[in-house]
Amino acid sequence: MTGPCFISFFLLLNLLPFFQTLEASHCSIKGLPLVRNIADLPQDNYGRGGLSHITVAGSLLHGLKEVEVWLQTFAPGSRTPIHRHSCEEVFVVLKGSGTLYLASSSNKYPGKPEEHFIFSNSTFHIPVNDVHQVWNTNEHEDLQMLVIISRPPIKVYVIFLLSRFASTFSPLVDGCPFVFPLSS
Amino acid sequence: MTGPCFISFFLLLNLLPFFQTLEASHCSIKGLPLVRNIADLPQDNYGRGGLSHITVAGSLLHGLKEVEVWLQTFAPGSRTPIHRHSCEEVFVVLKGSGTLYLASSSNKYPGKPEEHFIFSNSTFHIPVNDVHQVWNTNEHEDLQMLVIISRPPIKVYVIFLLSRFASTFSPLVDGCPFVFPLSS
Repeated sequence: MTGPCFISFFLLLNLLPFFQTLEASHCSIKGLPLVRNIADLPQDNYGRGGLSHITVAGSLLHGLKEVEVWLQTFAPGSRTPIHRHSCEEVFVVLKGSGTLYLASSSNKYPGKPEEHFIFSNSTFHIPVNDVHQVWNTNEHEDLQMLVIISRPPIKVYVIFLLSRFASTFSPLVDGCPFVFPLSS
Repeated sequence: MTGPCFISFFLLLNLLPFFQTLEASHCSIKGLPLVRNIADLPQDNYGRGGLSHITVAGSLLHGLKEVEVWLQTFAPGSRTPIHRHSCEEVFVVLKGSGTLYLASSSNKYPGKPEEHFIFSNSTFHIPVNDVHQVWNTNEHEDLQMLVIISRPPIKVYVIFLLSRFASTFSPLVDGCPFVFPLSS
């Protein structure tokens, strides 16, 4: 427990299936090919409808220690949970559009979330520990993003609807708890 | 000097022009918009013909401390220098194809470089300190990649053609010194 408005928990997914691609010419780490076709990589939704998550380069799968890269695709209407994490995160939007909700965590409690329009070929980053949510608010097409994080494997603190926090984020959520795809 | 085969130097570019985009809705760090249109970001070639380098998210421009993201486009025939750096690096190939040359640095001197075919929608990462070069060996189209590094601003050690190293990489180079786009 870190405060009255947060219930935090830590999930570490470390049993993603082993995979190989035929295109690769060299095995570098753990028997995996150095050059990998992203289309051949395993994807999962971690129980979140409308989500496709691919670990492009990861800590547990590929031995990275300082950065991790994901490819995430959100069907219309789907979204991340409201969450925060103590690492840097950079997004590069490859397809579609949507909305970023971001609340500064410079105070004890997150401030009122601000809405930001995100679109194909845009980029943004989330300051360490700022509470945020990415939502495909475009009804007509998928939202696809490359997500880069530091300090893998990530610890995600998912925000529940309690006390003061509920009032600041209440327009954005329709239930809890959330389950979020974490590191791989 | 770190050894008979390396001459290293460190360039830090910190005077990239200040920029703004009209699409952005929020100013987060140093007066820059939080959501940025990548098409509006400044690009440079740092003196390398055929190169377009854009810092998508950077340490000096955007205040990131742990990761940095570049968008690099290489015209047919252009390439990075032969270099190494003590950080993690992940590539995501967005367009085109080419060749990665990679020599393990597990020994005192880099081993013989291996060739790896890289292609659109592929990914690979460079182990810390391994000597490498990415070359657009496709005569017909640009090679465009997202490049993610840890520990910005990056220190790049450029490899010159001296003694034993020349023999291992000699098919790959046509002159020196190289100048490489570094951190922003």
